Amino acid sequence: MDKLYFDDIAEHTVAEFGSFEMTQDEIIRFAKAYDPQSFHTEPLPPPGSAFPKLIASGWNTAAATMRMLVENWIVKCHVFPSPGIDELRYVRPVFPGDILRVRLSVIAKRKSASKPDRGIVNCRVETLNQNGEVVLAFKSIEFLKVKPA
Amino acid sequence: MDKLYFDDIAEHTVAEFGSFEMTQDEIIRFAKAYDPQSFHTEPLPPPGSAFPKLIASGWNTAAATMRMLVENWIVKCHVFPSPGIDELRYVRPVFPGDILRVRLSVIAKRKSASKPDRGIVNCRVETLNQNGEVVLAFKSIEFLKVKPA
Repeated sequence: MDKLYFDDIAEHTVAEFGSFEMTQDEIIRFAKAYDPQSFHTEPLPPPGSAFPKLIASGWNTAAATMRMLVENWIVKCHVFPSPGIDELRYVRPVFPGDILRVRLSVIAKRKSASKPDRGIVNCRVETLNQNGEVVLAFKSIEFLKVKPA
Repeated sequence: MDKLYFDDIAEHTVAEFGSFEMTQDEIIRFAKAYDPQSFHTEPLPPPGSAFPKLIASGWNTAAATMRMLVENWIVKCHVFPSPGIDELRYVRPVFPGDILRVRLSVIAKRKSASKPDRGIVNCRVETLNQNGEVVLAFKSIEFLKVKPA
Protein backbone atom coordinates (compact mmCIF):
# COMPACT_ATOMS: atom_id res chain seq x y z
CA MET A 1 0.00 0.00 0.00
CA ASP A 2 1.23 3.48 -0.82
CA LYS A 3 2.10 5.56 2.19
CA LEU A 4 -0.11 8.49 3.09
CA TYR A 5 0.85 12.09 2.36
CA PHE A 6 -0.33 15.20 4.19
CA ASP A 7 -2.96 15.63 1.43
CA ASP A 8 -4.43 12.19 2.19
CA ILE A 9 -5.21 12.88 5.87
CA ALA A 10 -8.84 13.74 6.59
CA GLU A 11 -9.66 16.03 9.50
CA HIS A 12 -11.87 14.49 12.18
CA THR A 13 -10.79 10.94 11.32
CA VAL A 14 -10.90 8.71 14.42
CA ALA A 15 -9.18 5.32 14.55
CA GLU A 16 -8.64 2.72 17.29
CA PHE A 17 -5.81 0.21 17.09
CA GLY A 18 -3.09 -1.72 18.87
CA SER A 19 -2.82 -4.04 21.84
CA PHE A 20 -0.09 -3.81 24.48
CA GLU A 21 -0.19 -5.87 27.69
CA MET A 22 1.38 -4.06 30.64
CA THR A 23 2.72 -7.11 32.42
CA GLN A 24 4.26 -6.79 35.88
CA ASP A 25 7.65 -7.67 34.33
CA GLU A 26 7.27 -4.90 31.74
CA ILE A 27 6.31 -2.32 34.38
CA ILE A 28 9.18 -3.19 36.72
CA ARG A 29 11.81 -3.52 33.97
CA PHE A 30 10.94 -0.10 32.52
CA ALA A 31 10.83 1.57 35.94
CA LYS A 32 14.18 0.15 37.07
CA ALA A 33 15.74 1.64 33.94
CA TYR A 34 13.96 5.01 33.78
CA ASP A 35 11.64 5.76 36.73
CA PRO A 36 12.92 3.99 39.86
CA GLN A 37 10.24 5.05 42.33
CA SER A 38 9.02 2.29 44.67
CA PHE A 39 5.42 2.33 43.43
CA HIS A 40 6.75 1.54 39.94
CA THR A 41 9.44 -1.02 40.89
CA GLU A 42 8.03 -3.00 43.85
CA PRO A 43 5.16 -5.54 43.57
CA LEU A 44 4.21 -4.39 47.08
CA PRO A 45 5.34 -0.77 47.52
CA PRO A 46 6.53 -0.05 51.09
CA PRO A 47 4.46 2.17 53.43
CA GLY A 48 4.97 5.82 52.63
CA SER A 49 5.24 5.29 48.87
CA ALA A 50 3.55 7.95 46.76
CA PHE A 51 0.99 5.34 45.63
CA PRO A 52 -0.03 2.24 47.62
CA LYS A 53 0.01 -0.27 44.72
CA LEU A 54 2.31 -1.12 41.83
CA ILE A 55 1.38 1.05 38.84
CA ALA A 56 3.17 1.70 35.57
CA SER A 57 5.33 4.78 35.13
CA GLY A 58 3.47 7.32 33.02
CA TRP A 59 6.51 7.31 30.72
CA ASN A 60 6.10 3.53 30.32
CA THR A 61 2.48 3.95 29.26
CA ALA A 62 3.53 6.75 26.91
CA ALA A 63 6.26 4.55 25.40
CA ALA A 64 3.79 1.67 24.93
CA THR A 65 1.44 4.15 23.25
CA MET A 66 4.23 5.28 20.93
CA ARG A 67 4.86 1.67 19.88
CA MET A 68 1.20 1.25 18.94
CA LEU A 69 1.24 4.59 17.10
CA VAL A 70 4.36 3.66 15.13
CA GLU A 71 3.13 0.21 14.14
CA ASN A 72 -0.40 1.24 13.18
CA TRP A 73 -0.14 4.83 12.03
CA ILE A 74 3.29 6.41 11.61
CA VAL A 75 4.68 3.62 9.39
CA LYS A 76 1.78 4.23 7.03
CA CYS A 77 2.61 7.94 6.58
CA HIS A 78 5.39 9.93 4.91
CA VAL A 79 6.66 11.63 8.07
CA PHE A 80 9.42 13.97 9.15
CA PRO A 81 10.61 13.73 12.78
CA SER A 82 8.02 15.15 15.20
CA PRO A 83 8.76 18.39 17.07
CA GLY A 84 7.05 17.17 20.27
CA ILE A 85 3.77 16.74 22.07
CA ASP A 86 1.50 18.81 24.32
CA GLU A 87 -0.63 18.24 27.41
CA LEU A 88 0.54 14.75 28.36
CA ARG A 89 -1.75 13.60 31.18
CA TYR A 90 -1.69 10.44 33.29
CA VAL A 91 -5.45 10.19 33.61
CA ARG A 92 -5.81 6.86 35.47
CA PRO A 93 -3.33 4.41 36.98
CA VAL A 94 -2.18 1.49 34.80
CA PHE A 95 -1.98 -1.79 36.72
CA PRO A 96 -0.17 -5.06 35.93
CA GLY A 97 -2.21 -7.07 33.43
CA ASP A 98 -3.93 -4.07 31.85
CA ILE A 99 -4.24 -4.37 28.09
CA LEU A 100 -3.90 -1.04 26.34
CA ARG A 101 -5.00 0.24 22.96
CA VAL A 102 -4.93 3.64 21.26
CA ARG A 103 -7.62 5.98 19.99
CA LEU A 104 -6.26 8.56 17.53
CA SER A 105 -8.33 11.57 16.47
CA VAL A 106 -7.16 13.98 13.79
CA ILE A 107 -8.01 17.42 15.18
CA ALA A 108 -6.56 19.80 12.62
CA LYS A 109 -4.17 20.05 9.68
CA ARG A 110 -2.50 22.93 7.93
CA LYS A 111 0.33 23.50 5.47
CA SER A 112 3.60 24.72 6.91
CA ALA A 113 4.07 28.45 6.40
CA SER A 114 7.87 28.18 6.29
CA LYS A 115 8.52 24.79 4.65
CA PRO A 116 6.48 24.06 1.49
CA ASP A 117 7.42 20.33 1.50
CA ARG A 118 5.36 19.54 4.59
CA GLY A 119 2.13 19.99 6.51
CA ILE A 120 1.35 19.91 10.21
CA VAL A 121 -1.17 17.39 11.54
CA ASN A 122 -2.48 17.77 15.11
CA CYS A 123 -3.97 14.70 16.72
CA ARG A 124 -5.48 13.81 20.04
CA VAL A 125 -4.01 10.54 21.29
CA GLU A 126 -5.83 8.60 24.00
CA THR A 127 -4.67 5.35 25.54
CA LEU A 128 -7.48 3.10 26.74
CA ASN A 129 -7.42 0.09 29.03
CA GLN A 130 -9.41 -3.13 28.58
CA ASN A 131 -12.44 -1.46 30.24
CA GLY A 132 -12.47 1.36 27.69
CA GLU A 133 -11.24 3.89 30.26
CA VAL A 134 -8.75 6.56 29.18
CA VAL A 135 -5.51 6.06 31.14
CA LEU A 136 -3.27 8.51 29.29
CA ALA A 137 -3.80 11.32 26.78
CA PHE A 138 -1.73 13.81 24.85
CA LYS A 139 -1.83 16.02 21.78
CA SER A 140 0.63 15.01 19.10
CA ILE A 141 2.21 17.24 16.49
CA GLU A 142 3.26 15.48 13.30
CA PHE A 143 4.97 16.74 10.16
CA LEU A 144 3.84 14.91 7.00
CA LYS A 145 5.20 15.29 3.49
CA VAL A 146 3.07 17.13 0.96
CA LYS A 147 2.28 14.96 -2.09
CA PRO A 148 4.76 15.68 -4.92
CA ALA A 149 3.19 17.59 -7.79
CA MET B 1 18.60 14.15 55.16
CA ASP B 2 14.92 15.02 55.65
CA LYS B 3 12.88 15.05 52.49
CA LEU B 4 11.62 18.36 51.16
CA TYR B 5 8.04 19.51 51.55
CA PHE B 6 6.14 21.96 49.33
CA ASP B 7 7.01 24.67 51.87
CA ASP B 8 10.74 24.04 51.38
CA ILE B 9 10.79 24.66 47.61
CA ALA B 10 12.04 28.11 46.60
CA GLU B 11 10.74 29.68 43.43
CA HIS B 12 13.37 30.46 40.78
CA THR B 13 15.74 27.77 42.09
CA VAL B 14 17.86 26.36 39.26
CA ALA B 15 19.81 23.11 39.58
CA GLU B 16 21.89 21.00 37.19
CA PHE B 17 22.47 17.31 37.81
CA GLY B 18 22.76 13.81 36.42
CA SER B 19 24.75 12.05 33.74
CA PHE B 20 23.26 9.58 31.25
CA GLU B 21 25.22 8.24 28.30
CA MET B 22 23.05 7.54 25.28
CA THR B 23 25.01 4.63 23.89
CA GLN B 24 24.12 3.12 20.52
CA ASP B 25 22.97 -0.03 22.35
CA GLU B 26 20.68 2.01 24.61
CA ILE B 27 19.17 3.89 21.66
CA ILE B 28 18.51 0.76 19.59
CA ARG B 29 17.22 -1.32 22.50
CA PHE B 30 14.70 1.35 23.54
CA ALA B 31 13.57 1.96 19.96
CA LYS B 32 13.05 -1.73 19.18
CA ALA B 33 10.77 -1.94 22.22
CA TYR B 34 8.88 1.34 21.91
CA ASP B 35 9.65 3.39 18.77
CA PRO B 36 10.64 1.05 15.94
CA GLN B 37 11.33 3.60 13.21
CA SER B 38 14.44 2.92 11.10
CA PHE B 39 16.25 6.13 12.11
CA HIS B 40 16.02 4.96 15.75
CA THR B 41 16.80 1.24 15.24
CA GLU B 42 19.40 1.09 12.43
CA PRO B 43 23.05 2.19 12.80
CA LEU B 44 22.80 3.23 9.15
CA PRO B 45 19.16 4.13 8.39
CA PRO B 46 18.13 3.13 4.85
CA PRO B 47 17.51 5.79 2.16
CA GLY B 48 14.11 7.39 2.58
CA SER B 49 14.19 7.27 6.39
CA ALA B 50 12.71 10.32 8.09
CA PHE B 51 16.22 11.23 9.35
CA PRO B 52 19.49 10.25 7.63
CA LYS B 53 21.41 9.21 10.79
CA LEU B 54 20.74 7.11 13.88
CA ILE B 55 19.20 9.35 16.57
CA ALA B 56 17.51 8.53 19.86
CA SER B 57 13.74 8.38 20.10
CA GLY B 58 12.47 11.50 21.81
CA TRP B 59 10.71 9.18 24.27
CA ASN B 60 14.09 7.59 25.04
CA THR B 61 15.61 10.97 25.83
CA ALA B 62 12.54 11.81 27.94
CA ALA B 63 12.87 8.51 29.84
CA ALA B 64 16.58 9.14 30.47
CA THR B 65 15.64 12.61 31.72
CA MET B 66 13.06 11.09 34.07
CA ARG B 67 15.71 8.79 35.53
CA MET B 68 17.97 11.75 36.29
CA LEU B 69 15.02 13.66 37.77
CA VAL B 70 14.03 10.76 40.01
CA GLU B 71 17.54 10.08 41.27
CA ASN B 72 18.48 13.69 41.92
CA TRP B 73 15.25 15.52 42.69
CA ILE B 74 12.06 13.50 43.13
CA VAL B 75 13.56 11.09 45.69
CA LYS B 76 14.44 14.11 47.81
CA CYS B 77 10.84 15.39 47.92
CA HIS B 78 7.58 14.27 49.52
CA VAL B 79 5.64 13.74 46.29
CA PHE B 80 2.27 12.54 45.13
CA PRO B 81 2.04 11.02 41.62
CA SER B 82 2.36 13.69 38.94
CA PRO B 83 -0.65 14.57 36.76
CA GLY B 84 1.47 15.04 33.64
CA ILE B 85 3.70 17.38 31.68
CA ASP B 86 3.29 20.14 29.10
CA GLU B 87 5.09 21.30 25.96
CA LEU B 88 7.48 18.39 25.46
CA ARG B 89 9.83 19.40 22.65
CA TYR B 90 12.58 17.46 20.90
CA VAL B 91 14.82 20.46 20.39
CA ARG B 92 17.92 18.82 18.86
CA PRO B 93 18.79 15.28 17.77
CA VAL B 94 20.50 13.02 20.32
CA PHE B 95 23.28 10.93 18.77
CA PRO B 96 25.02 7.77 20.01
CA GLY B 97 27.65 8.69 22.59
CA ASP B 98 25.94 11.90 23.72
CA ILE B 99 26.14 12.41 27.48
CA LEU B 100 23.05 14.05 28.88
CA ARG B 101 22.36 16.02 32.04
CA VAL B 102 19.35 17.93 33.37
CA ARG B 103 18.73 21.57 34.22
CA LEU B 104 15.70 22.03 36.47
CA SER B 105 14.19 25.48 37.06
CA VAL B 106 11.38 26.05 39.55
CA ILE B 107 9.01 28.42 37.73
CA ALA B 108 6.08 28.71 40.12
CA LYS B 109 4.41 27.13 43.15
CA ARG B 110 0.98 27.44 44.67
CA LYS B 111 -1.14 25.61 47.21
CA SER B 112 -3.83 23.33 45.84
CA ALA B 113 -7.28 24.97 45.98
CA SER B 114 -9.07 21.62 46.34
CA LYS B 115 -6.64 19.46 48.37
CA PRO B 116 -5.12 21.11 51.46
CA ASP B 117 -2.49 18.38 51.91
CA ARG B 118 -0.54 19.37 48.81
CA GLY B 119 0.90 22.12 46.67
CA ILE B 120 1.62 22.36 42.95
CA VAL B 121 5.17 23.02 41.76
CA ASN B 122 5.76 23.94 38.10
CA CYS B 123 9.24 23.42 36.75
CA ARG B 124 11.00 23.86 33.45
CA VAL B 125 13.04 20.78 32.66
CA GLU B 126 15.80 21.00 30.06
CA THR B 127 18.01 18.14 28.95
CA LEU B 128 21.48 19.20 27.84
CA ASN B 129 24.12 17.34 25.87
CA GLN B 130 27.88 17.37 26.55
CA ASN B 131 28.18 20.62 24.56
CA GLY B 132 25.67 22.41 26.77
CA GLU B 133 23.03 22.43 24.03
CA VAL B 134 19.39 21.84 24.97
CA VAL B 135 18.20 18.64 23.26
CA LEU B 136 14.82 18.22 24.97
CA ALA B 137 12.59 20.42 27.13
CA PHE B 138 9.27 20.18 28.90
CA LYS B 139 7.27 21.76 31.70
CA SER B 140 6.66 19.44 34.63
CA ILE B 141 3.78 19.56 37.07
CA GLU B 142 4.53 18.09 40.49
CA PHE B 143 2.36 17.65 43.58
CA LEU B 144 4.32 17.98 46.83
CA LYS B 145 3.06 17.42 50.36
CA VAL B 146 2.51 20.44 52.55
CA LYS B 147 4.55 20.30 55.75
CA PRO B 148 2.47 18.87 58.62
CA ALA B 149 1.54 21.51 61.18
